[in-house]
Amino acid sequence: MKTKVGIIGGGPSGLLLGQLLDLIGIDNIVLEKHSREYVLGRIRAGVLEHGFAELMREAQCGDRMDAEGEIHDGFYIAEGGNKRRVDLAGHTGGNSVMVYGQTELTRDLYEAREKMDGNIIHNVEDVKLHDLKSDAPHITYSDGTDTIRIDCDYIIGADGFHGVSRKSIPADVLVEHEKVYPFGWLGVLSRTKPVSPELIYAKSDRGFALCSLRSQVLSRYYIQVPLTETAADWSDDAFWTELKARLPKDVADGLETGPSIEKSIAPLRSFVAEPMRYGSLFLAGDAAHIFPPTGARGLNSAGSDIYYLYHALMDHYKDGDDTGLDSYSEKALARIWKAQRFSWWMTTLLHKLPDNTSYENKLQQTDMDYLFSSEAALSSLAENYVGLPF
Amino acid sequence: MKTKVGIIGGGPSGLLLGQLLDLIGIDNIVLEKHSREYVLGRIRAGVLEHGFAELMREAQCGDRMDAEGEIHDGFYIAEGGNKRRVDLAGHTGGNSVMVYGQTELTRDLYEAREKMDGNIIHNVEDVKLHDLKSDAPHITYSDGTDTIRIDCDYIIGADGFHGVSRKSIPADVLVEHEKVYPFGWLGVLSRTKPVSPELIYAKSDRGFALCSLRSQVLSRYYIQVPLTETAADWSDDAFWTELKARLPKDVADGLETGPSIEKSIAPLRSFVAEPMRYGSLFLAGDAAHIFPPTGARGLNSAGSDIYYLYHALMDHYKDGDDTGLDSYSEKALARIWKAQRFSWWMTTLLHKLPDNTSYENKLQQTDMDYLFSSEAALSSLAENYVGLPF
Repeated sequence: MKTKVGIIGGGPSGLLLGQLLDLIGIDNIVLEKHSREYVLGRIRAGVLEHGFAELMREAQCGDRMDAEGEIHDGFYIAEGGNKRRVDLAGHTGGNSVMVYGQTELTRDLYEAREKMDGNIIHNVEDVKLHDLKSDAPHITYSDGTDTIRIDCDYIIGADGFHGVSRKSIPADVLVEHEKVYPFGWLGVLSRTKPVSPELIYAKSDRGFALCSLRSQVLSRYYIQVPLTETAADWSDDAFWTELKARLPKDVADGLETGPSIEKSIAPLRSFVAEPMRYGSLFLAGDAAHIFPPTGARGLNSAGSDIYYLYHALMDHYKDGDDTGLDSYSEKALARIWKAQRFSWWMTTLLHKLPDNTSYENKLQQTDMDYLFSSEAALSSLAENYVGLPF
Repeated sequence: MKTKVGIIGGGPSGLLLGQLLDLIGIDNIVLEKHSREYVLGRIRAGVLEHGFAELMREAQCGDRMDAEGEIHDGFYIAEGGNKRRVDLAGHTGGNSVMVYGQTELTRDLYEAREKMDGNIIHNVEDVKLHDLKSDAPHITYSDGTDTIRIDCDYIIGADGFHGVSRKSIPADVLVEHEKVYPFGWLGVLSRTKPVSPELIYAKSDRGFALCSLRSQVLSRYYIQVPLTETAADWSDDAFWTELKARLPKDVADGLETGPSIEKSIAPLRSFVAEPMRYGSLFLAGDAAHIFPPTGARGLNSAGSDIYYLYHALMDHYKDGDDTGLDSYSEKALARIWKAQRFSWWMTTLLHKLPDNTSYENKLQQTDMDYLFSSEAALSSLAENYVGLPF
C-alpha cells in the first residue's frame, strides 16, 4: 500500500488528523492496534479548550459536540469550607471551555471517518517503522497472517505512551523528562445528576477531590489516593463518604450518589520527550507527553500537536512550504511545556503533597490566598485553563 | 524607667516605628545592642516599595530619599544573551519602586530621631523580656554596670533574626518554617558608574547575577556562588570576569569595573516564625522572617509589619480600639507569606538550581518563556515587585 501520511494510532489525535487531512485531499491511513469497541470503551478526559473545539468544527465533527456539549465559562475552587468561582470568560475576554467526553468525541470522529470512507485499519499487530531518516519511510504491520507494508511520505506517531513510535527514535537522539507524583486519582463515573453545573476542584486536608461531569445525567468524581491503593479497595459507599468529607458542607449535602458504572485509579505523572520529530516521523499526543489530569491538558495538548501538524502538512502539500514541518518540534514543544507548567502548578496548588515541608505547605496555601486576591493571578490561571494561543 | 512602647532593636524597623509613634505622641524607647556606627556600617537592601517610601514620608524622613533616591518604574531580566524589560508602571497602573540604600535610610531615621530627641539607647547588653503574658511586661538590660528596668505596655521585637525577642516566645507556642537554598550571593560594592540605570536580573548557565546600584556613582553587583566558597576566595578580577560571563555581551561590554569597597557572601534562606504576637510582645522584621534577597522583600516586609503596628498602636492609644493589635499577627503574616511566595518564585526563576531534575530545569525555563508571553504573568510579577497592598 501507498499513502501520503501514515498515522499510527486510532485515538482522537490520529482520527482527527486523518479527518482534517482527508478534507483537504491529503491521502492518509490510520493504523490502530485495538478494535473500535476497545477504543470507544475508554473513559478519558472531558474538558476541551476553545481551540480544540474549533478544530473539531473545522474537521466537520462538531455538530453533536455543539448540540450536547456544554460551554463552561467558569469553574469553582473549593477550600476551607467555601467554594470560589474562577470566571474564565471575565478573565480572558469571553473565552470558555467545552465539556464533552472524550468517548463521545472519539465516536463522532469515527462516524465522520466512516462517512468519508476514511482509511482506518484496526487490530494491526507488530507495527514497525522503517527508514525514518530517508525520504521514503515505510511502515510494516501484521494482520495476523501476513506482513503488510505501507509506503508513505510522513509517519505520524499518535499511538500513545506505550506505542512503538517514540520507541523508534534512537536513544541517543531522544531526551525524556519526567516527574512522578506520589499519588493517583480514584475516579468514579455514575449516572447521577452532577452536584454542580460547573466543575469543582477541591483542596482539603484529606486530599484533593474533583466534581466533574460528562453531561447533566452523567457525573464524574475523583479523589486523590495513595499509590498503594487499588480501585478494588474502595466500595462505592467508601468512595462517596470520602468524597463528601473533602467537599464544603453545602456541596456534600447536595451530592447525589449512586452505583459506580466505572471505577479506576490513574497515577499522576508529567512526561515530555524531545524532539517530537525524527526524520519522517512526527510524534503527537501521549506518544510524546503525559500530563497529570489536573487542569485537563492531556487531550488538549494532543489537539495542539494536531493543529500544528495539520497546518504543516497542508503547507507542504498545497504550497510546497516546509517551514511548518521543520519548526514542528520546536513550536509544539513550546506550547506543550507551557501546558506542563500549568498542570504542574495546578496539581501542586490543589493536592495534599505528602513530601512537603511545613514551609512548602505554607507556600501552597499562600498560592491559593494570593490567587484569589489578585486579578493578575486569576487571569493567568484563566488564560491557561481555556488554552494558550496556538 | 517607664514608657508606653519598648522597642528592641535600632535598625530601620525600630527607628521607623519609634519615629512614627513619637510624631503622634506615643512615648517609646528604642534599645540597640550595637553602636550607631555599627548599625550604619551595614550594607543592606536598596529597593523600596512605594508603600515603604510613603511610610518614610509619613515619618517625616523622606526628604533626602526623595531628593537622592531614584524612582524605578521598570527593571530588566537578562537571559539567553538578551535582556527584556519588565514595565512596572505599565503593569501596575503607574506604580514604581524607589532605589535608595538601607544605610542612607537608616542614617535619615537616626537624624530625624535626634531632631525630635527620640529615646534611643545604644550598647545595651543582656536584654531580657519579662511577664509577656501580663498587662505589665517589662524589659531589663545591662548598661555594662547596672541592670536597668523599663516598664511598658507593649514590647516590639525588632531585633533581627538573632535577637532575644523571638527566643522569648515559648517553644511550644512558636512554629518556625524554613527553606534553605544551596547557594549564596557574593556581593561587591564599587564606586563605579552602574552598568544600567535600572536593575538587571540575569539568569545564565553559570548561575544568577544581579546588576544593582545605590546611586549613579555607586554600583552593587552580585553573583550566585556555592555555599562552600568565601569572599576571600574571590579577587576583584575574578569577580568581574565571572559577572561579565553571566551577562549579555552588550551589558558586559559596557560594565565599568573598579576596586571593591565591600565584598561579602550572604547565604539565601526563607524563614517565617508564627505567631508574630505573644501576649504583649509583637515581632517585626527579621526577628520574625527572613527573605532571600531576590526581589527585595526583606526590608520591605519589615516595613509592612511596621505599617500594621503603627496603625494598631495608634488605634489603641487614640481610640481605645484593639482590633489592630488583636489581628496584627494574622494580617502581618498574610502579607509576609505572599512576599515569601514571591521571593521564592523569583529565586527559583532566576538561579541555577543544582538539585533540579531535567524536568524541573525545563519547567524553570518555561516559567521564563511564559512570563514574557503573558500580560497576566507580567502583571503578577509587577504587582508583587512594587509591593502588594497593605
